[in-house]
Amino acid sequence: MQRFIWAVLLAFAVAMVLGPVFIPWLKKLKFGQTIYDLGPQSHKVKQGTPTMGGIIFAVPMIAVPLILSTQGLSLPFLPMALISTVGFGLVGFVDDYIKVSKKRSLGLTPMQKIVPQVVVSAALAVWAYLTPSIGSKLVVPFVNTEWDLGIFYIPVMMFILVGTVNSANLLDGVDGLCAGCSLIDFSMMGLVCLSLMGANAAGSGDLLNMMVFCGAAVGALLGFLRFNAHPASVFMGDVGSFTIGGALAAVAMVTRMSLLLPIIALTMFVSSLSDIIQVGYFKYTKKKTGTGKRVFRMAPLHHHFELGGMSETRIVSMYMTVTALLCLVTLTMFI
Amino acid sequence: MQRFIWAVLLAFAVAMVLGPVFIPWLKKLKFGQTIYDLGPQSHKVKQGTPTMGGIIFAVPMIAVPLILSTQGLSLPFLPMALISTVGFGLVGFVDDYIKVSKKRSLGLTPMQKIVPQVVVSAALAVWAYLTPSIGSKLVVPFVNTEWDLGIFYIPVMMFILVGTVNSANLLDGVDGLCAGCSLIDFSMMGLVCLSLMGANAAGSGDLLNMMVFCGAAVGALLGFLRFNAHPASVFMGDVGSFTIGGALAAVAMVTRMSLLLPIIALTMFVSSLSDIIQVGYFKYTKKKTGTGKRVFRMAPLHHHFELGGMSETRIVSMYMTVTALLCLVTLTMFI
Repeated sequence: MQRFIWAVLLAFAVAMVLGPVFIPWLKKLKFGQTIYDLGPQSHKVKQGTPTMGGIIFAVPMIAVPLILSTQGLSLPFLPMALISTVGFGLVGFVDDYIKVSKKRSLGLTPMQKIVPQVVVSAALAVWAYLTPSIGSKLVVPFVNTEWDLGIFYIPVMMFILVGTVNSANLLDGVDGLCAGCSLIDFSMMGLVCLSLMGANAAGSGDLLNMMVFCGAAVGALLGFLRFNAHPASVFMGDVGSFTIGGALAAVAMVTRMSLLLPIIALTMFVSSLSDIIQVGYFKYTKKKTGTGKRVFRMAPLHHHFELGGMSETRIVSMYMTVTALLCLVTLTMFI
Repeated sequence: MQRFIWAVLLAFAVAMVLGPVFIPWLKKLKFGQTIYDLGPQSHKVKQGTPTMGGIIFAVPMIAVPLILSTQGLSLPFLPMALISTVGFGLVGFVDDYIKVSKKRSLGLTPMQKIVPQVVVSAALAVWAYLTPSIGSKLVVPFVNTEWDLGIFYIPVMMFILVGTVNSANLLDGVDGLCAGCSLIDFSMMGLVCLSLMGANAAGSGDLLNMMVFCGAAVGALLGFLRFNAHPASVFMGDVGSFTIGGALAAVAMVTRMSLLLPIIALTMFVSSLSDIIQVGYFKYTKKKTGTGKRVFRMAPLHHHFELGGMSETRIVSMYMTVTALLCLVTLTMFI
């Protein structure tokens, strides 16, 4: 637990140093976010705020676990988590870079985004499947049982990884929202690792490394929020949200806790779900009646609340509160 | 620990129910805050936002520990904490009530405020001194030693109690600031109680009750933040900040951790300190040179940052981040 705290503090310090170096540099390079044309009108004022700020937390999230972990990369969990973080993060980085350099609000084509995501997720899912301490079982929340998926573990895990990464991306639409909610999720997963360490002496080195990894994510995101809290001086960009999604899904995967994700990361889950419902219903009604109808004022769901008159800061506090309460309920499984 | 979580959830639920009932009622009764004439000009827009919202969290903070504690009020810690919470809270309530009913921004006179505070703090300090599991010793942070104050415990503890309550009051000047920072402090103190329970089987019922008390405070404040986060629909008022100060100081007192307060509640501490420095320096320079000079743009310190151009939300995130990091550093003492 002490090591968790040191990871938080060290990662926070790194993020605090990187922010003031990195943000002016992004501004000078004109890496300002071209605000998504289909977003809320009120977001137009955000034009020019630099994006790709995710690098501010991605660096300590990757570096600090390497420094504070035990037995370096010889145990499997940490390399898996780092590859997931870096792999998905790179896809986001390329996407951001194209957006910024071409000055258009859409980066990679959907196909160019999804193919490398599928490759990374397939590699991770197979690796996890073949790792004895992970295998093909998922813990089923609250009922104290495990679900053995056999070979189907691989496609299911790929779906969970890609789904989480893209859901994190969708959640990133309001200042501090994605960083704030995932900060709570990583705190929660750090405590889960701590609790599993007590129960499972065999894999305790691996779990210790995951606890340090979560601590680094907490500290890094806390540092980033210093710059990203409303009114944001920098956005995380796809490099940020993909890094978060990759890191969170990886921690869940190696601890076999992936089925917790729809609970502890409900805010990510509903962001995706609301997007799917919105698009699906629009297409369905368009086909049926000729005019497409919408369920939400705008998807993902946080824009629905925003257009309903709720302030950005209130949306963030609501989402973070819901996340904190769901994490607390879930923690009762472990302690 | 499970009981801690249930306390959080139950208190949150109570606050969520009380908010929508209570806020419209306060508005109808025109219990709007008359904005302090000497505060920042930008706060004038807040005129009319109802105050005394602290009742929304004070009720679950008091009720939930009574429901979820063990052995009711037969163990000394819980009654002490409740008397501190209610005692100081009542002073704040009367102060608010006078402000609101007389429509002026100053309520009780300084003397009318300080006398009941001294009475409550004296009663608590003597009671703690005479309670064998508390006594006259204070834990000195980080050096693994205790400091026996003897009979001087009583005046020192009175000073700490009154100081904390008034510091909490001074911290309450920006939407969500006092509730957000103290939420982190109560989470921290809950974990401290949990850790002390492990080390000290004898007083574990008492410590369990304090853990539940802290959990209730966390949940209640989380629920309140739903209404108090920027832009606030309700202010906590003196009833709120005095309740928080009384509760926090009491938990520190019974666990003999009062010397942690300047660390974990640094944001409260600097609010008081900046106020004292500002007034002291002004009086000193006025006497010396004829014109009073100021150290800060405005005291307490958060108004200094605000007038320096920092947004309210950024101040809150900065203060909460500092509080979280200091609490984490302090936690290394215990785990």
